[in-house]
Amino acid sequence: MRDYVEIGIGREARRTYSLEDISIVPSRRTRSSKDVDTTWHIDAYTFNIPVMSHPTDALASPEFVIEMGRQGGLAVINAEGLWGRHEDLDAAIARVVAAAESTNPLELLSTAATTALQELHAYPLNDELLARRIGEVRESGATVAVRVSPQKARELAPKVIQAGAELLIIQGTMISAEHVATGGEPLNLKEFIGSLEVPVIAGGVTDYTTALHLMRTGAAGVIVGGGTNTNAISLGIETHLATAIADVAAARREYLDETGGRYVHIIADGDIETSGDVAKAIACGADAVALGEVLAPAAEAAGQGYYWPPVAAHPRFPRGFVSEAPTVLLENEERPSLETLLHGPSTEPYGYQNIVGGLRRAMAKCGYTDLKSFQKVGLSVR
Amino acid sequence: MRDYVEIGIGREARRTYSLEDISIVPSRRTRSSKDVDTTWHIDAYTFNIPVMSHPTDALASPEFVIEMGRQGGLAVINAEGLWGRHEDLDAAIARVVAAAESTNPLELLSTAATTALQELHAYPLNDELLARRIGEVRESGATVAVRVSPQKARELAPKVIQAGAELLIIQGTMISAEHVATGGEPLNLKEFIGSLEVPVIAGGVTDYTTALHLMRTGAAGVIVGGGTNTNAISLGIETHLATAIADVAAARREYLDETGGRYVHIIADGDIETSGDVAKAIACGADAVALGEVLAPAAEAAGQGYYWPPVAAHPRFPRGFVSEAPTVLLENEERPSLETLLHGPSTEPYGYQNIVGGLRRAMAKCGYTDLKSFQKVGLSVR
Amino acid sequence: MRDYVEIGIGREARRTYSLEDISIVPSRRTRSSKDVDTTWHIDAYTFNIPVMSHPTDALASPEFVIEMGRQGGLAVINAEGLWGRHEDLDAAIARVVAAAESTNPLELLSTAATTALQELHAYPLNDELLARRIGEVRESGATVAVRVSPQKARELAPKVIQAGAELLIIQGTMISAEHVATGGEPLNLKEFIGSLEVPVIAGGVTDYTTALHLMRTGAAGVIVGGGTNTNAISLGIETHLATAIADVAAARREYLDETGGRYVHIIADGDIETSGDVAKAIACGADAVALGEVLAPAAEAAGQGYYWPPVAAHPRFPRGFVSEAPTVLLENEERPSLETLLHGPSTEPYGYQNIVGGLRRAMAKCGYTDLKSFQKVGLSVR
Amino acid sequence: MRDYVEIGIGREARRTYSLEDISIVPSRRTRSSKDVDTTWHIDAYTFNIPVMSHPTDALASPEFVIEMGRQGGLAVINAEGLWGRHEDLDAAIARVVAAAESTNPLELLSTAATTALQELHAYPLNDELLARRIGEVRESGATVAVRVSPQKARELAPKVIQAGAELLIIQGTMISAEHVATGGEPLNLKEFIGSLEVPVIAGGVTDYTTALHLMRTGAAGVIVGGGTNTNAISLGIETHLATAIADVAAARREYLDETGGRYVHIIADGDIETSGDVAKAIACGADAVALGEVLAPAAEAAGQGYYWPPVAAHPRFPRGFVSEAPTVLLENEERPSLETLLHGPSTEPYGYQNIVGGLRRAMAKCGYTDLKSFQKVGLSVR
Repeated sequence: MRDYVEIGIGREARRTYSLEDISIVPSRRTRSSKDVDTTWHIDAYTFNIPVMSHPTDALASPEFVIEMGRQGGLAVINAEGLWGRHEDLDAAIARVVAAAESTNPLELLSTAATTALQELHAYPLNDELLARRIGEVRESGATVAVRVSPQKARELAPKVIQAGAELLIIQGTMISAEHVATGGEPLNLKEFIGSLEVPVIAGGVTDYTTALHLMRTGAAGVIVGGGTNTNAISLGIETHLATAIADVAAARREYLDETGGRYVHIIADGDIETSGDVAKAIACGADAVALGEVLAPAAEAAGQGYYWPPVAAHPRFPRGFVSEAPTVLLENEERPSLETLLHGPSTEPYGYQNIVGGLRRAMAKCGYTDLKSFQKVGLSVR
Repeated sequence: MRDYVEIGIGREARRTYSLEDISIVPSRRTRSSKDVDTTWHIDAYTFNIPVMSHPTDALASPEFVIEMGRQGGLAVINAEGLWGRHEDLDAAIARVVAAAESTNPLELLSTAATTALQELHAYPLNDELLARRIGEVRESGATVAVRVSPQKARELAPKVIQAGAELLIIQGTMISAEHVATGGEPLNLKEFIGSLEVPVIAGGVTDYTTALHLMRTGAAGVIVGGGTNTNAISLGIETHLATAIADVAAARREYLDETGGRYVHIIADGDIETSGDVAKAIACGADAVALGEVLAPAAEAAGQGYYWPPVAAHPRFPRGFVSEAPTVLLENEERPSLETLLHGPSTEPYGYQNIVGGLRRAMAKCGYTDLKSFQKVGLSVR
Repeated sequence: MRDYVEIGIGREARRTYSLEDISIVPSRRTRSSKDVDTTWHIDAYTFNIPVMSHPTDALASPEFVIEMGRQGGLAVINAEGLWGRHEDLDAAIARVVAAAESTNPLELLSTAATTALQELHAYPLNDELLARRIGEVRESGATVAVRVSPQKARELAPKVIQAGAELLIIQGTMISAEHVATGGEPLNLKEFIGSLEVPVIAGGVTDYTTALHLMRTGAAGVIVGGGTNTNAISLGIETHLATAIADVAAARREYLDETGGRYVHIIADGDIETSGDVAKAIACGADAVALGEVLAPAAEAAGQGYYWPPVAAHPRFPRGFVSEAPTVLLENEERPSLETLLHGPSTEPYGYQNIVGGLRRAMAKCGYTDLKSFQKVGLSVR
Repeated sequence: MRDYVEIGIGREARRTYSLEDISIVPSRRTRSSKDVDTTWHIDAYTFNIPVMSHPTDALASPEFVIEMGRQGGLAVINAEGLWGRHEDLDAAIARVVAAAESTNPLELLSTAATTALQELHAYPLNDELLARRIGEVRESGATVAVRVSPQKARELAPKVIQAGAELLIIQGTMISAEHVATGGEPLNLKEFIGSLEVPVIAGGVTDYTTALHLMRTGAAGVIVGGGTNTNAISLGIETHLATAIADVAAARREYLDETGGRYVHIIADGDIETSGDVAKAIACGADAVALGEVLAPAAEAAGQGYYWPPVAAHPRFPRGFVSEAPTVLLENEERPSLETLLHGPSTEPYGYQNIVGGLRRAMAKCGYTDLKSFQKVGLSVR
C-alpha cells in the first residue's frame, strides 16, 4: 500500500514527504475568512486557536504564558528547564542572551551560548521554586500546561500537578509507550497516565505503530514530530512531517474504531515556521500545532529575540542551538506583540505574522469553515 | 488517470508541475520567426500580441495603458487601486516609491513601502475620479480593460463600464462561480455576467472544476493563476502553473463539447517572468498571458522601477510586497521602453526583454506559426 | 516505451535527463588508463582525441586551430564570425575583451560586451578576407573545419570549401533537414550535401526524428545539442543532453539498419564542462564532443580569457553572453596551454584540466579501452 | 527487480541513492543509549567502536594512530604516502600546510598545496624508513593497519607485514579482483591474499559483482566507496553510497550462502561527515565506517587542521585537494581532541563531534542495541 523504493538490492525505503513538499489545493466554492471557526476542543479545555507553544524557556516567561492564554492559545512550561533551577530567572536568561550576542557574527552558531545553556542546566532542580512559579501563573487565570520528560515523568509529574498544572505534556525527542532500559524500571505510560488526574499530551512520535500504542495509553493528545531539524544531520533521523502527521492520523482512525469513538488529538510540532505551514499541518490531519521559533520574536517571549529548543542544553550531545528569532523584516524595529504574531495586522507577506489570520484565509479560499473538515482538503506534491 | 502519490497512510496528493519544471521540445521542421503570427482574438477584440498586464498601479499609468495598446497588447486598470482614491496619483505613487527607496538595503523587503500602500488604500474610493480617469484613457483610443474584485464587482462594474471600460476583468486571488458567505448576498457570477454589456474575463482559478463552473457563467476568458508566490508560504497554497493551465484547458475542451463550440480563452497569470515562460504557458494551453513584474522596468510603467501586486496593499494580511523591478543588467542605464521589453532589440540573453521576439523564436524553432497549434508542442519534465 | 508523466489533465510530458542527472557505473575489471585508445575516425579523418571545438571566435584564433590539430583534436572556424569581417581581427577581439573588462563587477553580465559583439558583427562579410585566412590555416597543415549557418550555407559553403575547408560544419541552434520559410527557397540539406565534395557535420538536433532525417541527408556526423543554456530561460527550450544523445544514438541504430551499415557520428555539444561530462556524453552514445567554454582558458584561445558563443552576437535577441573563462583556480597565474587543458599534467581536481586524461581514467576504471564499447557502460540516475 | 529508468530511447539507467537521500525511521520501543553496544569484531581483532581512519598522511601521525587505538578504533597508515619518503615527516607535512595557509582566501582551493603534495610524493619510497616507522607504532601497542595500493601491493605488502602491520588494507579508488593490463602481470588478489599471513581488507568497490568477486578472494573486509567526491565531476563516476552499501550487503548474503557461513565485513568509506552519516551507513548494511575529513580537526591529526585524501597527490590528475578541516564552529578555539570528536562531550549540534555518541543515540531511539541488528532499521527517502 505504501510507496517503497528499492535503494539497493534487497533493501527498501519508504518514500516520505515533508510539509515543504506539499501544497494545499483549493477546489471548492470560496468562503469569507470571517466565517472560519478555529476553535480547538481538547478534553475539557477549549482554545480559540489551535496553537500550543513549544516547551522552551526561550518562550515561556510568565508574561508569555499569560498572554498566550489571552490570545486564545496554550503556552507550555518546561519543568526541566531554568524555571526550577534559578531563583533569578531573568539573570539566567540574560546570560544565555549575552553569550549569543557576544558571538562573532561570522560563526555559524554560538557555542558560547550552548555552553551557557549547558552550565545553567547543570544546576539542581529546586522543586519548591518550580512549584511556586507554576502556582503564580495558575493564579493569573491562564490554563497551565507543564512539560516533563519521559525519564523524569514519574518523579516530576505529581509535583507539577500538585503545583497547578492542568495539562501534563510528556515530551521527549522520541517517545514510545514503553521505554526499555537494562536495569531501572521502565516507564509504563499506560499505567502512569491512568494514575494521573489531569489530561496528558505525549510525544513526539513519527510513526503509525508508536502513535497507536501511545493512544492506547490513554493520552488525550499525541505530539507528532521528531525534535529539532539538526537530528537529520546528527542522528540520520529526519522527520518528514507531512507523512508523519498523515500516518498518525491513520492511527487515530484505527483507535477510533477500536474504541468505538475515543478521539485522540494530534498536535504537530516541528518545521512549522509560517501560517502556511500551520495550514498544511492541519490539512495533513493535525488538530493543532505547537509553535516554537516563529513565536520567539514576540515582545512577551522570554528569550529577548533569541530562541533555543530544550535539547540545545543537553550536556554531551546538544541538538539545536541558540539562534536569533526570525524577525525577518524587522531590523531596527520593536519586537511585535504576541497578538500581532498570532492575529495581525501585519505588513509582512510570508505569514510569519498574523499566523492565525493566514490559517483562516487558507481555509476560506479552500471553502472550509472548521478545522476538522479542513483535514480533507486536496493536496499536491511537486 | 491523474498521477497521485500516497504521502501518508490513506492520504493522497496529486503530483503537479510548475512552468519551471517543464521544457518545450522541438521536433518538427524549423520555421522562420518572421512567419510566426501572434495575433490573439478574444470576443470582438483583436490584439497583435497575446499579452495583458496584471492589474496593478505599479504598471498602469495612463501612458502605460496607451502604450500597451500601441504595442499590440492590453493593459488592465485596477478599479480598486489608487486611481480612484487620490486626485494626485503621481504623488501617491511617489510616496510608495520613496518609502521603498529609503529602505535599508540589508532588509529583505520594505515594510515601510507596504505601510505606505496600506495607508494609501485606506482612502475612500471616489467613483467620479475613477470614472474621469477611465474616460480620459478611453478617449486616447486604447482599448480599456478595468479590473474589479469579486467582492466589489456588483457595486463597481456598472460604474466602470459606464465610464468607458470595454472589457471587465473580475479578478481575485481565488475566485469561484459562487462565493459563499454567512449573511450578505453571494455574487452569482452567471447572473451577473449575463447582465453586463461588455465581455468579462474572470479569475484566478487553478483547478478543472472551478474553471468549468466559471466558463459556464458566460465569461469570455478565464484567468489561470493563484495570486502571488508568497501564497505558497503564507497560505500553504502553491499554484503549479503548468498543471493548472493544462487542467483548465481540459475544462475548455469539456465546455466546448457541452456548448457545441463556445471557446473560452485562458489567460495565464503568475510566475511568468521571461519570454521562455510565455512560450511555456502557451505550450501548456494558454491563449494569452498576463505579465506583471517583467513589465515593471518599462519607462512608461507607473512604478518608476518598482513593482507590487494589488494584494500587497491588504490592510491585515498583505501578500506580495514592493520590490525593485527586474532590470537585471541595467545598472546605471535608463529604463527601457515598453516597446523594447516587448519587441526588442535587446542586449540581454535571458528573455527579460524582446519578450514577444522570444516567443516568436520558440514557436519558429518548434515549427509552429500560430498560437493555437503551438498549444500542442511536445513537452518534457526533468 | 518512453517514460511520460501527465502534467495536467490530458497533457503529457516526457521525462528527460541531463548529463548532470546521470552517473557512470563501473562494474567490470579495471584496466590501466595507458591501455585506453581514444582515437576517433570520421570519414577519411582520424583524430587522436574525440574532441572538436565549438565554432566561436572566442576560441578559434589561427594559433588555436593549429594547436588543436597538434593536440589531436579538431578546431572549427566560424565563417560568419569576425574572421571575414575585420582585417584587424586582433583589434576586433580586443574591443570585445575591453568592453567585458570594463564592466562593473557587480553586474551579472556585460551588456557592453554584447553591444560590442553586435556592432562588430554588423560589418559586412568580406569573402576574400575569410578565404585568405582559411587558406593560411590550411597551409599550416592542420585539418580545417569551417562552420556555416543553415541560412547562409548555400552562399558560403562553396566559398569556404574553395578556400580550403576539409570538413563543413552546418550548425544552427536548431536545424532540421528542411527548413520551411514563406517565400525564399528552403535549404534542402540532402540535395545540398550531395552536391558538396567534403564531408558535412550538421546540427544541432535534440530529437530522434530530426536526427534520423538529418542522417538521411548524407551527413557524416550529427551534432546533438540545442545551443546555449540561456535558451532554457529565453525560449523555454531546455536541452537535456543525456536523453538527447541517447535518442539520437537510437536514430543512428535505425539508420544503420536502413542503410545496411552507414554509421553517422554523433558529436555532443553543450553543457560539457569537465572531463567527467565528456565521459558521460560518450557513455550516453556520443562518438565525440564539441568543447566550448572549457577550452577558453587556453593561452592559444583568441578570447584572452573570455568566452562567448556565436549566438551572443545576434542583433535583436542574443542568447549567451561574454563571460570570463572558467580558470577556476588560477587567480594570478598564467593561462594554461591547450596541451595542459587537454592532456595535463594538472593540479586541479575537478577535470577542468587534463580533460582527455580524465576520460581515459573514467574508461579504465570501468574496464573499457575504446570509445565505441564505452557507449555501453552502466549508468545511474539519482 | 532493480528500479531502472529509460533516460533515452533504448538506454536505461538505474536509480540509485546517496546517504543524503535517505533517513532512518524509528518505529520500535526506545532504549537508553547507555545500553547500546558498538563493538566491532573483525577476524581476530575487536574494536570498541566501528571506526577506521582513511589512510591519509593528513590524519595518521604516530600520535594519531596510537590515540585511535586508545579511543577504541583503528587508524590506517598509508604505505605510499610521506612516511616512507621523508626522514623529516613533520617538515614535509609543514610544507603542505604552509602552502595551504599561504593561499589567497578568495581562491576555491590551493593549487600550491597540491603542487607541494605532488612534489613531496615524487621522492622515492625508502622501505627501511617506512619499516622503521611502522615498527615504532607497533611497539606502542596499538593495532597497526597499513594501506597499500593494488598496483604496489605485491611489492610492498610483504615489507609492511614484516615491519609489523597486523591488518593489510589494499585500497585504490576502484579495485577489482583482477586488474587487466596489457603487458605486466595483473594482480590476482585471490592468490595474493591467500599467500599472506595477515587479514586483508580490500576496496573500494561500489557494485554487487565486483564485491562478490572480492569476497571470493578471501578478504576479511571489503571497503565500499568510490573515492573522493571530485570523482563525480572529474570522471563522471558518482558513488551513491546508500545504494552501494546495500548492494554489497546483498553480495555478503550471497557469499554467506555460497560458503555456508563466511562473513565478510563491509566498511563504508566516503561521504561520511557526521554521526548521522555513520548511523545511516550502518543502517544500509555496513559493519563499520572509515572516517576521513571529519577526524581532521583532531589535535592529534598530522595535518594541523588541514585535510587531503591520498589521491590529491596524483602527479597528473589529482582528485581531491588540501582543505581546511571542518572545525565548523570553532573559530579561535583550540582543536578538539580525538576523544572529543569520537566520544564528546560536545557543544556542537550537527554531529561533527561526539560522533560515536550520536551513533549510540540514533540506535537507542530506534530501539536497537547492537550494530548488526541496526542494519535492519527502517529507512525512508524523500
